[in-house]
Parts: sequence; C-alpha cells; structure tokens
Amino acid sequence: MTPFLSEDFLLKTETAKTLYHKYAAKMPIYDYHCHIDPKDIYEDTRFNNITEVWLGGDHYKWRIMRSNGVSEEYITGNKPDREKFQKFAEALPRCIGNPMYHWCHLELKNFFGYTGVLNGDTAEEVWNIANAKLKEENFSARGLINQSNVAMIGTTDDPCSDLMYHKLIAETDFKTKVCPTFRPDPAINMLKPDFKEYIKKLGDTVGFELKTADDVAKALSMRIEYFDKMNCRAADHGLDYVMYRESTAEERNLTFRKAMNGEKPTMEEIEKYQTYLLLHCAKEYARLGWVMQIHFSCMRNPNSKALKTLGADTGFDCIAVTESCKNLFNVMDALEKENNLPKTVLYSLNPADNEWIGSLIGAFQSEIPGKIQHGSAWWFNDNKIGMENQIKSLANLGILGNFIGMLTDSRSLLSYARHEYFRRILCNVIGEWVENGEYPCDMEYLGSLVEDICSNNIKHYLNF
Amino acid sequence: MTPFLSEDFLLKTETAKTLYHKYAAKMPIYDYHCHIDPKDIYEDTRFNNITEVWLGGDHYKWRIMRSNGVSEEYITGNKPDREKFQKFAEALPRCIGNPMYHWCHLELKNFFGYTGVLNGDTAEEVWNIANAKLKEENFSARGLINQSNVAMIGTTDDPCSDLMYHKLIAETDFKTKVCPTFRPDPAINMLKPDFKEYIKKLGDTVGFELKTADDVAKALSMRIEYFDKMNCRAADHGLDYVMYRESTAEERNLTFRKAMNGEKPTMEEIEKYQTYLLLHCAKEYARLGWVMQIHFSCMRNPNSKALKTLGADTGFDCIAVTESCKNLFNVMDALEKENNLPKTVLYSLNPADNEWIGSLIGAFQSEIPGKIQHGSAWWFNDNKIGMENQIKSLANLGILGNFIGMLTDSRSLLSYARHEYFRRILCNVIGEWVENGEYPCDMEYLGSLVEDICSNNIKHYLNF
Amino acid sequence: MTPFLSEDFLLKTETAKTLYHKYAAKMPIYDYHCHIDPKDIYEDTRFNNITEVWLGGDHYKWRIMRSNGVSEEYITGNKPDREKFQKFAEALPRCIGNPMYHWCHLELKNFFGYTGVLNGDTAEEVWNIANAKLKEENFSARGLINQSNVAMIGTTDDPCSDLMYHKLIAETDFKTKVCPTFRPDPAINMLKPDFKEYIKKLGDTVGFELKTADDVAKALSMRIEYFDKMNCRAADHGLDYVMYRESTAEERNLTFRKAMNGEKPTMEEIEKYQTYLLLHCAKEYARLGWVMQIHFSCMRNPNSKALKTLGADTGFDCIAVTESCKNLFNVMDALEKENNLPKTVLYSLNPADNEWIGSLIGAFQSEIPGKIQHGSAWWFNDNKIGMENQIKSLANLGILGNFIGMLTDSRSLLSYARHEYFRRILCNVIGEWVENGEYPCDMEYLGSLVEDICSNNIKHYLNF
Repeated sequence: MTPFLSEDFLLKTETAKTLYHKYAAKMPIYDYHCHIDPKDIYEDTRFNNITEVWLGGDHYKWRIMRSNGVSEEYITGNKPDREKFQKFAEALPRCIGNPMYHWCHLELKNFFGYTGVLNGDTAEEVWNIANAKLKEENFSARGLINQSNVAMIGTTDDPCSDLMYHKLIAETDFKTKVCPTFRPDPAINMLKPDFKEYIKKLGDTVGFELKTADDVAKALSMRIEYFDKMNCRAADHGLDYVMYRESTAEERNLTFRKAMNGEKPTMEEIEKYQTYLLLHCAKEYARLGWVMQIHFSCMRNPNSKALKTLGADTGFDCIAVTESCKNLFNVMDALEKENNLPKTVLYSLNPADNEWIGSLIGAFQSEIPGKIQHGSAWWFNDNKIGMENQIKSLANLGILGNFIGMLTDSRSLLSYARHEYFRRILCNVIGEWVENGEYPCDMEYLGSLVEDICSNNIKHYLNF
Repeated sequence: MTPFLSEDFLLKTETAKTLYHKYAAKMPIYDYHCHIDPKDIYEDTRFNNITEVWLGGDHYKWRIMRSNGVSEEYITGNKPDREKFQKFAEALPRCIGNPMYHWCHLELKNFFGYTGVLNGDTAEEVWNIANAKLKEENFSARGLINQSNVAMIGTTDDPCSDLMYHKLIAETDFKTKVCPTFRPDPAINMLKPDFKEYIKKLGDTVGFELKTADDVAKALSMRIEYFDKMNCRAADHGLDYVMYRESTAEERNLTFRKAMNGEKPTMEEIEKYQTYLLLHCAKEYARLGWVMQIHFSCMRNPNSKALKTLGADTGFDCIAVTESCKNLFNVMDALEKENNLPKTVLYSLNPADNEWIGSLIGAFQSEIPGKIQHGSAWWFNDNKIGMENQIKSLANLGILGNFIGMLTDSRSLLSYARHEYFRRILCNVIGEWVENGEYPCDMEYLGSLVEDICSNNIKHYLNF
Repeated sequence: MTPFLSEDFLLKTETAKTLYHKYAAKMPIYDYHCHIDPKDIYEDTRFNNITEVWLGGDHYKWRIMRSNGVSEEYITGNKPDREKFQKFAEALPRCIGNPMYHWCHLELKNFFGYTGVLNGDTAEEVWNIANAKLKEENFSARGLINQSNVAMIGTTDDPCSDLMYHKLIAETDFKTKVCPTFRPDPAINMLKPDFKEYIKKLGDTVGFELKTADDVAKALSMRIEYFDKMNCRAADHGLDYVMYRESTAEERNLTFRKAMNGEKPTMEEIEKYQTYLLLHCAKEYARLGWVMQIHFSCMRNPNSKALKTLGADTGFDCIAVTESCKNLFNVMDALEKENNLPKTVLYSLNPADNEWIGSLIGAFQSEIPGKIQHGSAWWFNDNKIGMENQIKSLANLGILGNFIGMLTDSRSLLSYARHEYFRRILCNVIGEWVENGEYPCDMEYLGSLVEDICSNNIKHYLNF
C-alpha cells in the first residue's frame, strides 16, 4: 500500500517516478490561462487567514459545502471565517475520490508543510498552522508565485482594460512574466444584460461611438493592437456553445441596432452577430501570431434563484450538451479557407466531446507542430480520470508529444499545485505504457517528451 | 489468479476485502425502487422450478437467449420449462463479460448453494438442485426476502391502487417494511394508447369526473395524500426524455380535451401538459418530504413487431440519445425558484449523460446533505463498468459519501444478489484509491462511509 | 517491465498469453471489409520502397505528419520518397500512445524482421532493410497476403463494376478467397457532385435509362443479383448520418427528377430518397442472406481548402455528432416489421455511441446467433482503448462470444498486423476477467471462444 500523499503520489511505476522526479518536477510553470487579478500581484496582497485565501473566491469549495448540506451563511454569508473553515473541513473527508481532496492536501503540504489529514477534528490545528505561515514573508501573492517556480502567468482581461497593473508589474523586479489575455466576450455575447453598457464603455475606450457591428469589430481590432503591444499572446472566447451563421454587413448591423435600442434580436440574428465577431477576431489573432482559445459546452447560471441572490460565478455553472460539433467545424473551415486560422486551443466542458475534438484538430493541422490543440481537461474534468481521458484521447488521435499541457484556470494563488497534480498523472500514464511494453524505455527521450509537455511546448507555442 | 466467484469476488485489494467483509456485507438492504408485486409478498408465493423464478419474467435473460439465436417458443412461448432452462444454460457461457453471468452465479451460490458453473452440460444438475431447494420452507417470497436481510422494499404502484396488499402485509408479522412508490406515468403520458381509459379510472378512484388538466392535477394530489398516509416516501417518473414547456391553464386544458376526444394533440401541446403535471407533482412531493425519482433517455418498444406479438416490457427497450439536458435544468430551476424542489434522484439510461448529471446535481444542492442525487447505474448500466463509472463520476463531481446507493429495479425475488454485486464493486473502487495512496487508510472512517452508502444514507434520505 | 513489442506484447496475464499464443495466433484472417484494389492482387503488384507501400495512400500517416508541422510537399507532394520517409520517421517517436506507433513497429517486425525503433536516427537503416526485403519473392501483393494467413478478403466495390479482377483472381491458384462487397453509396448519396454522372453510368451498366427512383432501385437489384453470382456476401453503406423518412413513390421520383435536372432538392426530399433506397437494398440483402454493414457519424471533408487542393480521402475526415440514434431504430424497425431485416453490422465513428448501439442490437436479434452485430472499433477508434471499450460494451450489453471480430478497413497490404493487434487486446481483456475471478478458468472453452471471435463466427456469418 502506498501511503496517502507520499512523495510518489499517483506514481505507480518506477518509470513514472523517474519521469516525475527527474524531469517533470523541476520544470517551470507556464500558467497560460488563469483568473488571478494582476492588481493582487502588483500590490503583493497578503491574506489574514486560510479561509480568505482558500474559501474566499473558490466556487469549487462552495459546491462541496452545499452538497454536504451546509447553509449559505457559512459559504458566501457572514459567519466568522473560523466557522466557515470548520464547515469545509467537516465536508472534506466525505469527498473521497474528488480532486478537491487531493488539491487541498497537496496545497496544505506544499505551502503550509502540513502532512496530516484535514477534517473536523484537525481543523483547529490546520487553521493555526496555516494562519501562522500566512504571516511569513513569502506568503504574499508574489511570494506564493515565487515558491511555485512560475515562469509565466496569463491573466484574463477585459478589452477595455488599460492593463495598468501589467505595466506596473513589468516595471518591478518580479521575475514571472505576467501577460494579459484578450477576452472579448462582453462585446460579443449580446444576451448578457449589461451588453449595451459594455458597448458604450468600449466606445469610450477607443474614442468613438460604436454604431454598427463593424464599429465593434474595428474597436476590438484596436484593442487587440493595444494588447499586442502590451505583450499579450493569447485570446480567450468563453462560449456557452459554438455557433456558426454567415451574415451580411446589413444583417448584423441591423441586429446590433436592435440590441442597442433595447429590442430583442432573434437567436438566429444574435448568432450571426457573434459568428461575425468571432471570425473577425480570429483573423486578427492569426495575423499577430496569437493563440485563440475557445471554451464551450457550458451551462451558465442554471439556478436562477442562486443567480438572483448570489450573482454569477458563484458555483452553479454546469456541463452542457450542445450542438457545437458541426458549428465548430464550420468555424475552423471558414478561417482555414481564407488562410486566417490562428493557433487554436479547443476546450469542451463535456468530456463526451473528447473524441470528436481529438479528430477535429487533426483536420486543421499545418506547418506549425501542434498548431491546433485539444485543451487540457477543464474545470469539472480537471480530475485524475478527466485528465487521463484527455491525455489518452489526444494520444490516440494525435501527437501527445506536441501537447501544450496544463493551466490552472484558477482565481487562487495556491492552485499551482494542480500543475504538480497534472504532471504526476501525465508521468504515470506514460510510465504505465512503458512498463507495459507499449513504448520503448528510452528514459532520456521520454524525459524530453515530458519536459516538452510540462513547459517547452507552451513556451514555443506562445513565442517566448 | 483469483478463482471464479470466490469469497473475495471483485475485491482486488486487502482494503477492499476488509471493507466488504467487515462493513458492507452485514448492512441491511433498502431496496427502494423495485417492481416486485406486493401480492406475491402477502400471499407468500412459491415457485415450482427455477425457470418460473428465474426466466418467468426476466427480460434481461430473454435478450440473452434471443442474442444467441434461441427461438421465441423457448423464451416466451410454450416449450416445457426444462427445455427453456436448457436453452438459457447453453447461452450463458458465451456471455463472458456480461453482468448476467455474475448475477446468475451469485444467485445460484447464495440461494441454492451451487458453486459450479452453469452451462448446457450442468443444466440438469442445477435444475434438480434448485428445484429441490425451491420446495424448502424459506424459499417462498417472504423466505427469500428474509434470507437477503432486506429492511425495506419500495414497490412501484399505480396512483389508482388502493394499496390493499401493502395494508395486509403491514398487518402480518413480516419484518421488512414494504412501502408503495407513487408512479403517475399513465396519467401524464398522453401518448400511451390507454390514456383515456386510465383517466376515467383515475376519476372513478377519486370520485369525480376529470374534465381538465387541472382536474388531473387535483386527482393526483388526492392520491399523493392517500399514498402518503400509506407510508409512501417516494415517487417515480419514467420519461422517455425530459421535456420542459411552460403553459397556461387554458392551453393544457384544451390539450386534455383534445386527447379525451380522441384527437391527436401536437408534441408541443403534449409536452406542455406533461411539464405541468410533473411540476405539479414535484411540488406536492416537496411539501410532503418525499423523494422524486426521474428516469429518462429510454427508447421504449423500438421493435414494433415484437411489441405487437409479445407486448411491452418484454426485453426490447433500449438506451436513447435525447435532448434532456437543457430541459432537465429548466425543470430543476422552475422548481427551485419557487422553493418547490423536492429531494430528487436522476437516472439516465445513457451513460454518456453521467458527467452532465454529476454537475447538474451540484447546482441545486442546499440544506440537506445529498439532497439531489445521481442515481445508481440503471438497467443497461447495471454492470461492473457501468457502476464503476457512475461511482467515479459522482465522486469526481460531488460527494460520494452522501450517495444513497443501490436498488434492484427488478421483478425477481432473487435479485438482491445485485446489492452484493454493487457493494463489492464499491468496496473495490475505494480499496484501490486507498492502496494507491489517494485517500488515507483510516479503516474505521472508511467503514463508516461504506456503511452510509450501503444503508444509512438511504435510510435518512427516506426519513426512516 | 515488459520490453517493448516483446512476444507477449499487450498480454498482461498468463491466461492472456496462453489464449493468444495457443489459440488466437494461428487462426486464419477473414478481412471482410477492406479497401485493397483487387487489381493489385491479380497483377501481384510489387513496391519499390517502403514509402510506396507505407506512405503512398495511408492518410493515417499523413495526419501524423501534418500534426507534427510537416509541410505538404513531404506528405502528398513531390519530395523524394527517402525524404518523405525521414519526415515520418521523425514524427513517429512523438506519437507516444498512438496506435500508429504500434502498427508501424508490428509491421516492421512481422514483415521486415526489424525489431528496433523507428525514428529520425534509424530511418536510413530501416529504409535499407525494408527496401531490400521488398525485392524478395514473397513481398508482392499476393506474397504479403500469403505471409499473413488470410483466408478471405472482402474488397469494396462499385455496383457498376464488372468485377473482372475478382473473376481473374478466381481463375488463378491464389488460395485466399477474394469476394466483392456491394457499396451503392454513389447511387444513393444525392449530395455528391458527381451524382448525375453516376446515375448515367449505372443506367449504362444495366442497359436502360434510369428515369425514376424506382428505376434506380431496379438497377441496384440487378447489380445485387450480379454481385451475388460473383460470390458477394456483404454490402456496405457509408452514411454521414443515419436518416429515416417515409415517402411515396411520387415524392421520391419527383426528387430524383429534380436532382437529374440540376435543381437542388431539400434535405427532407433527399433523405426520403436515400431512406427508400437503403430499405430497398436491405430487403434484397435479406432475401439473399447477405450481411448489411452501416457506417455512420462521420464528418467528411470538413476542411474545404484541403478538399480543393488534395481531394477526398486524404486524411481530413473526422468523428461527428449526429442524430442517428432514433433514425437507426426506425430503419431497423421498418425492416423487421416486414421480415426484411438482413444480418446487420453497425459501426459508428463516434465512440460515445457505443452503448446505445450495444442496446439496439439486442432489440432486433432473432433466430440467427449474433444476427445483429456491433461492428469492431472503427477508424479513429481502432486503437487499444477504442477496441477495449467496444469489446467491453458489447460484452456488457450482449454476447461477446458471438462477435464477428476484426477487419482492417485498410488500403494497405501490411495492415494485417492490425488483426494481431486486435487479437492480443481481446485475449488480454479476457485474461484479465479470468485472472480477476470474473469467469472460470476453463482454458479449452475460453480457447474456443477466442477462436470463434477470431475466425469461426465471421466464417459462419458470411455462410462460408
């Protein structure tokens, strides 16, 4: 029996152990898609207690607590931090098999040196240990990043942002590259209640009123140029589902006017507007050598009561079944046939989509190794089985050796432990293949493959 | 090599063996969803031979025989019982990897003490052994239930039923609780050919003619009240797919009149009527603290030739791909926003739905631990891989420790062996996690988790 | 650690090793669905170098090269064969976990006696070894087939073909049976640009002008009769998705006239025409005792730029999500209720369809053991995980012992190694069940099951 969370956690074979400890563990982290606030990095924010850093904005943990019948006042409400932590600690042991169980204990071990088990009985001990550590010098935002050997952080940014904090960070001696990511969703997703306000804000940012869909496109192009100058290398589109509808300028400008006048366009009209802007942006990314990320098959805010009382992004989003397959093929084809297809990373929230995505990427590869990527197991799939399935599906259908690997997609500064989690799982999968006689045991070559997937591939992919 | 069907069947690790033998095996069975006829329990039915008890109504076995080219006269026809048994015995060895192979041998071992292998050559021996046993005192319906340590049985009942046999059973000294389950499908599923007749029968039961959809709702409410007094704790809705359409009273009453006049309402009209009654019933369940079960993604009677000659429920139903995802979210949301969401168990017949269901339940949890459940692997998924996938999906996306566990969904009194099958698989999954260092080896806590999933959680969930 | 590609490649248990070496390995191959050109067999074609035989028409390998950033001139272009081979050899080691890695090394070992690893450094050595071998007597088309112990080859043939090469081959002393397969897609798929030309060609073949859909049906019947006389035992329908729409003769004849006049029929009209011909052909197959194969859920030519420059079948097709489930049930039911359902093999390119297919086949079995088959893991699923999943899904839902097993679906004469790949995987799955105590260790019976799946079942299924 392997003890819980030992040095060889998740590493079943000798090959896996060597690959992880000798090659993977030392590689710098390129966390190319996350939701850390650059302001926190610039101001080098500190945390008063573990509830602040752990439970403050982590909707994964909130879901666990709700699933255990904890009332909302202990989750997003006003109960004291110590009591909130207690409720979470009591729920955790019931989460056998949940990645949260592993993430939490990896973080407690790596950052706080706590190697015991967190539960209702040990909550007080862990509370004290963690809070004492959080007072230490290197437990500020930058300290935590430094501890984690992070070479690069890709934040998620509003096209209207002046990226002031990115500028300010660049002027410090902080060694980790902090790059913005262009996320134009609010200008594209016409269904959002604050769409009109956003368009006005975008107009203010670029200095002219946006009267047509073409104006929006022009404004986004200007912001893409600005982001590019600010060292942006990637964009991100968060779509509930992938749509594809061709349109005329007249059609989409009419739709835009409707939306700005408070009328409700039809879904078909909206999809035409959105397709147009997605393709427009993609063309710009291709021109600049950026990476386009597309996230889809997401059910946002299905619980309207929770949305009303707690707002968006509070732990109620879900996996959706969507008709994205055919549309995504159309999007890719429309770009490729005009030679406008940028480097692209595709992430579906529904793991039943793994195989068609794995085949799709193979139909649009050209010239750049791994130009089109099947993105790392995302969100609800960011667990051992989800990662193994994504890795194996990608390996079966394409070239695993060209994979750009893991990202955290996280709001938390402690989430770098998830890169360790991914790397252990990756090395374990490869180790099993090798020891099962499915790949030659050439450790040097295998080590270089692992290092590529951990860091080198994404570094080249982003042109660093 | 582990011998076939040894004491440690399916238990690969020492942890799994201890968890099963010390904790799981002894726990009483709460078989909260099955299709046993309460009349059989009250009358303490006996069986003349193994074909009667095994092949009489078991459409799983009929499918196996048909897949082996056996002609229908040996399946549902008039061939002698001994010959039917022979045909089944000859087909069974070819079913390597099929759960039927395991169920049959578990049942032969547990009930009849036969530890050999059933095939064409041994059929005569097994026939004699089993038939001799069936003559013994404790091989009546109640005897078989007693042998299996069953604390509770949830039958499946027509809203029109007077539940006479439940009453009569309650007056005996039979220790197993036999509770009705409310299954209002025939009043809701307007597409069934006997819908009109059923509505008349329901009207007769409640004592007034049902002239509107609102009358149907009222009648169902009355029957729910009656069932509640008769110790009913749960309802079950068997839907081919989940639909959601809002409607006005006028719309659904018009649809109802059409159906009663023999006109054919449109699918949209039918879905409005069905949505209305599903939501109406759910509200009643919530008020009374009942559990709502929803079964979906089922293709009923795809083989119309077989339906015509053999009738429904004869082994031809299948897994379907349906558009239930978005609709089920809408159903849940509609109930939650009015505070009418009861405890709910969701079962899809399509295992490709596991992950979105696992995420959906997390979006509607509140106050009660495990209030919304991802139901145990159902019907075609009730096999080792199907159960492992459901257990692991649930564990990844929610709290496995709060799972209400297994049910048989069976017409057979020998099917309790499937609880043993589930428990061995559950303990094996947990054992692997523990021995692989993915969870601490705290046997006492693990034992309590296993006992909770086997019996305690469902006991609390049903308010026993 | 098992060395790479040892004698016991993929065989983890002693049971698996015995099953493979003693039973499976020696069984003759029935490659009942492939794309080998019978002309190559008759003319006993020879190959100048390994690029010709390996990279010449293998779009699996082309995809790998594109995914590694190789430019098209080294793939389908005019670069020298040696340089093309180099590019492929350099890409291969990055394909860890891809079945291509296994297929290539199995073929190098089995045909060329090369037991090393192919990569950029060894490419020259392999080039020389392979090319020397290709000069030997038994490396012609027939020689390669003889080496592989192939009892039967099912080619894929145009209904207009006179099957001259099949006739000529039959007159030689070549021992492998080479049977045609009837593939009427070009007469059915009205969307193809050359539909009109094809209909004219079909009319010329049967000797009368085809003026109606009924004429097309009649012509296909005549060609089916001809193929039957030429020892054809099976047909194949390659559908992007399964459709089902009933029609009147008037409707489909009108649709046909539209298409022949260069007007564009609606999708509904096209689907009616296609459904009609599919059902018509199926009825003929049933009458003659043929096997009907249906392949679906395929995205053909999603990359229109590649289609324009390279043509169809050049490595850009993909897995699709289609609405085939309900329609396929309707097709099966329409045939079964008129007693016209032939032996049928169903293949979906989307592995998310495995389970509903596994249940569907069980709803239409009768009289013939394994009459309706879940086809072997196809194309993108033809890998270790894909095969294991298909085998286990079939075993869970039906009778694995009645499975007709593997086919190559290949254009290459070296692809028989994929039968070895399948057999090793099959024996390994069974070995694990047995050693895990899930099936009795009766080696003689297990051996006969394995031999049935490797050869005997398909032999009986095709009435040899």
